[in-house]
Amino acid sequence: MIQTKLIPRTAEAHEPPMLIKNMLAQSLRYEPQREIVYRDLFRMNYVTFNQRVRQLANVLTGLGVQPGDTVAMFDWDSHRYLECFFAVTSMGAVLHTVNIRLSPAQILYTVNHAQDKVILIHDDFLPILTAIKDQITTVDKYVLISDKVYVDLNAIGEVPAGFSGEYEALLKGTSAEYEFPDFDENTWATTFYTTGTTGNPKGVYFSHRQLFMHTMGLASYVCGYQAVPFSAMTDVYMPITPMFHVHAWGFPFLATMLSAKQVYAGRYDPELVLKLLLQEGVTFSHCVPTILNMLVNSPAAQKFKAQLSKWKVIIGGSALTKGLAKGALDLGIQVYQGYGMSETAPIMSLTYLNDLERDLPIDDQIEFRTRAGRIAPFIEMRLMNDDGTFAPHDGHALGEIVARGPWLTQGYYEDPERGADLWKGGWLHTGDVASITPDNWVLISDRTKDVIKTGGEWVSSLDMEDALSQLEGVAESAVVGLPDERWGERPHALIVQKPGYELTADGIKTELQTKVDRGDLHKWYVPDRILFVSEIPKTSVGKIDKKRIRSEMKEQILGAVNA
Amino acid sequence: MIQTKLIPRTAEAHEPPMLIKNMLAQSLRYEPQREIVYRDLFRMNYVTFNQRVRQLANVLTGLGVQPGDTVAMFDWDSHRYLECFFAVTSMGAVLHTVNIRLSPAQILYTVNHAQDKVILIHDDFLPILTAIKDQITTVDKYVLISDKVYVDLNAIGEVPAGFSGEYEALLKGTSAEYEFPDFDENTWATTFYTTGTTGNPKGVYFSHRQLFMHTMGLASYVCGYQAVPFSAMTDVYMPITPMFHVHAWGFPFLATMLSAKQVYAGRYDPELVLKLLLQEGVTFSHCVPTILNMLVNSPAAQKFKAQLSKWKVIIGGSALTKGLAKGALDLGIQVYQGYGMSETAPIMSLTYLNDLERDLPIDDQIEFRTRAGRIAPFIEMRLMNDDGTFAPHDGHALGEIVARGPWLTQGYYEDPERGADLWKGGWLHTGDVASITPDNWVLISDRTKDVIKTGGEWVSSLDMEDALSQLEGVAESAVVGLPDERWGERPHALIVQKPGYELTADGIKTELQTKVDRGDLHKWYVPDRILFVSEIPKTSVGKIDKKRIRSEMKEQILGAVNA
Repeated sequence: MIQTKLIPRTAEAHEPPMLIKNMLAQSLRYEPQREIVYRDLFRMNYVTFNQRVRQLANVLTGLGVQPGDTVAMFDWDSHRYLECFFAVTSMGAVLHTVNIRLSPAQILYTVNHAQDKVILIHDDFLPILTAIKDQITTVDKYVLISDKVYVDLNAIGEVPAGFSGEYEALLKGTSAEYEFPDFDENTWATTFYTTGTTGNPKGVYFSHRQLFMHTMGLASYVCGYQAVPFSAMTDVYMPITPMFHVHAWGFPFLATMLSAKQVYAGRYDPELVLKLLLQEGVTFSHCVPTILNMLVNSPAAQKFKAQLSKWKVIIGGSALTKGLAKGALDLGIQVYQGYGMSETAPIMSLTYLNDLERDLPIDDQIEFRTRAGRIAPFIEMRLMNDDGTFAPHDGHALGEIVARGPWLTQGYYEDPERGADLWKGGWLHTGDVASITPDNWVLISDRTKDVIKTGGEWVSSLDMEDALSQLEGVAESAVVGLPDERWGERPHALIVQKPGYELTADGIKTELQTKVDRGDLHKWYVPDRILFVSEIPKTSVGKIDKKRIRSEMKEQILGAVNA
Repeated sequence: MIQTKLIPRTAEAHEPPMLIKNMLAQSLRYEPQREIVYRDLFRMNYVTFNQRVRQLANVLTGLGVQPGDTVAMFDWDSHRYLECFFAVTSMGAVLHTVNIRLSPAQILYTVNHAQDKVILIHDDFLPILTAIKDQITTVDKYVLISDKVYVDLNAIGEVPAGFSGEYEALLKGTSAEYEFPDFDENTWATTFYTTGTTGNPKGVYFSHRQLFMHTMGLASYVCGYQAVPFSAMTDVYMPITPMFHVHAWGFPFLATMLSAKQVYAGRYDPELVLKLLLQEGVTFSHCVPTILNMLVNSPAAQKFKAQLSKWKVIIGGSALTKGLAKGALDLGIQVYQGYGMSETAPIMSLTYLNDLERDLPIDDQIEFRTRAGRIAPFIEMRLMNDDGTFAPHDGHALGEIVARGPWLTQGYYEDPERGADLWKGGWLHTGDVASITPDNWVLISDRTKDVIKTGGEWVSSLDMEDALSQLEGVAESAVVGLPDERWGERPHALIVQKPGYELTADGIKTELQTKVDRGDLHKWYVPDRILFVSEIPKTSVGKIDKKRIRSEMKEQILGAVNA
């Protein structure tokens, strides 16, 4: 940073910090009559929402929550979660959005590690709480959340022992007067725990400034550039990714700031999701490919084409395949793709079809729409080589995606070693290998730990598996790098054959060589050894376990009889 | 500010400051092929623009400009001005956008007061420079700007003695490699001088953070809420207010960040403005009422209705009358109104027709479109009473508009006394009297110095003049407050009669009393004394000189023979 002349300030002059409460204030300013809907159970306008956010702040204050304390939320996507996004943070407290997909032991670890003081918990998660409650060290107050209260106001007569009350009952009769204070914009606002393949969950965290800037970046991208066109005036927003996972990609902050109509679906029930989509006129969502796939292939889809053709969906989490993109586009669903991580709040890139691409025939657009998007506003992205130099953005050269920007976690909570690794060299390391085109499309190839470094070149194990999958008789494949004296590493493949085939390593290599001869494949991509197996080792969530293959199957692979 | 827990930061973690260069970087990211047009003389795409901005930074560095130095610009609206907006500020230097409407003596004062180091000056302003050059104390380099170079490359063979060269000639052949550095976001970016009725011009100034935030606020308002719908994809932007005047309302920063097509008209020549509007397909502008009036009443208007009906225009500077609004709307021109000051960067409010108002018949919309707009995103506005308390936002109670927000000047440069007055009590005092409706419409009534404070009530002198103007035989009127023992102040009126009329004070008061009886006028609005005059004292720019009336005509008014 160079030295410059700063603006002088008159003693009484005021310049506000950028806080989440500034976005909340906007939600009341122009369209207070627009609605926030929860399932088929509850709806309110922004006036009521603002009152409830303040009531919640008063309830939490009554429970002893002070600035700097952490409040943990166990809930599905709901209006209550949205209320926590604004109330907890604007009090100066920290919202821990509990990752309910972790094992109970891991959840226990995160609750203790984050030093949660108060837990708000949906009754669906009480069994988990029961299993771990004895070992929770810092929580002294519990609030029950239950959907039953929206059906029958008397349903929640009793709450479990040790609970301070039920959410709606506590809000009721509590004052809606609460003036959210000013404080430093670098104040800690939210915490979320993510897992790697090893070690304890890692806590990422974001400040008010970071979440404000993430919202501004999103607003610029989807409203300004109209990358995925979002109009507060006509769009109806419904997330179909969990709010605990980096704030449902930050869209609830944007939708609330712009006082757009919002719909929250609670625990995902495919029938209810579809019903809400149709009845509430949802036009803007984000989800993982699995959910889109369910919808596209449901017999109901053709029937509801009129509404589906107004639906814009951003896919994230896993890659959007060309087949699914085509299926969705054929129904009129506008599909887009985003890329980010828990560490990045999360948006780092998002589909943006520019003036030259926007009017291409739909089939030609699929190539663009299945990419990981174009680099988002204010995010700087580079491709880092092993030696810390940067690879060119030519659409071919591979490197690890490293990033800078206004909304990246500044470390892992109380984990200085992994935090230092994350930020090694002053860039956030994503662990993803990609190329970037000169016009800023991000083309993700692999995870860094799986990419194969051979003779100075990076070979994407995913690209190689894709090539193998296209060969006749190959049911499944896995490509890993193993150490090689001459080249550093060399690729090797495991292949599961389809029933009735009798493939040979030589046959496969010959076919691959044809691709090399045609110029479709670099010659260093051809695996050294091919091992036929009956199944490929997978992780608990069904991903190919390349780490185990490299460690446990090394000798077997290198001993495979190949020509 | 309360104490909270700030986010911890890993040693190498990076979070960027919010700088103008971040907006510049965006201009290249998605639509580099879009164009910036200057009159019928020059056009370029954003690739060239970015190169020229860096060339300019190199030229200025060569002229000795260092971070913290001030560079002064004397030019009409141009692509060169836009280049200065980004190049000078992103170097860490300060851009003084010279107020060329001041007198030469005042311009001299501002150049010396701002301690300008380098002056870039359009040849239209050389006569002014010649008049003051001997007395300029801090400038050591001059750069000539001339439009002739776009017509004939050899036209600028010679530049005046003491000049370092001509703008285009200096850029040509200069490297387009320049890495804009990181620095504190509170770095001084721009300075502009504004005048009051007394004293020297006052220097307002804005930081990188403030201009970044102003752009985010505008983007939220015109792209997010679609208050005045702006689409980078389809809109073509042409300012028709000067760029020296608080950055042409900040829209050039927004348009550049979003890489929208932009058109700059140079010195305003009505024919050329219309030609550009038609030929370049301009759809988004802002101007003072006079310019809109000229266009609406030009015989050409009906002929070009097709293009004019795509034109969105924000009016500022003076109030948009209902008549002009109607004339414009009848041509299909979408008119809006904005409110702000040099001190506020400037946007504080802007027309926003919400869901309940947007589809009203055009005639019913006129009432809304001629208001000063709705409070802009992130701006806090209050109505301050004389005793420092706040008046309610009920659409009736009057108070002085005071504001807070992320982009307000933090004082007047080296003028601590007037800076302290501006920020008295921690709110920026606008000197404008208004009411605010519960749904955030700003209704401006008067300037504080002209409002009449009688018996605890504030009477708008403008409203009173409006009432008088509607009476038969009244050609012109001026209403001022004079001290009164019982009521503090009381209103008094000067009236110029239309030829052929013989009005009397009693007659006028009787007519006003009828309005009072009907409930159209508060009884304390009726002036104590009415003085018939042959003309009303005006300032040099044609405004009623109420200060002079109060000081020089006091005895005459109080001595007027009234019943």
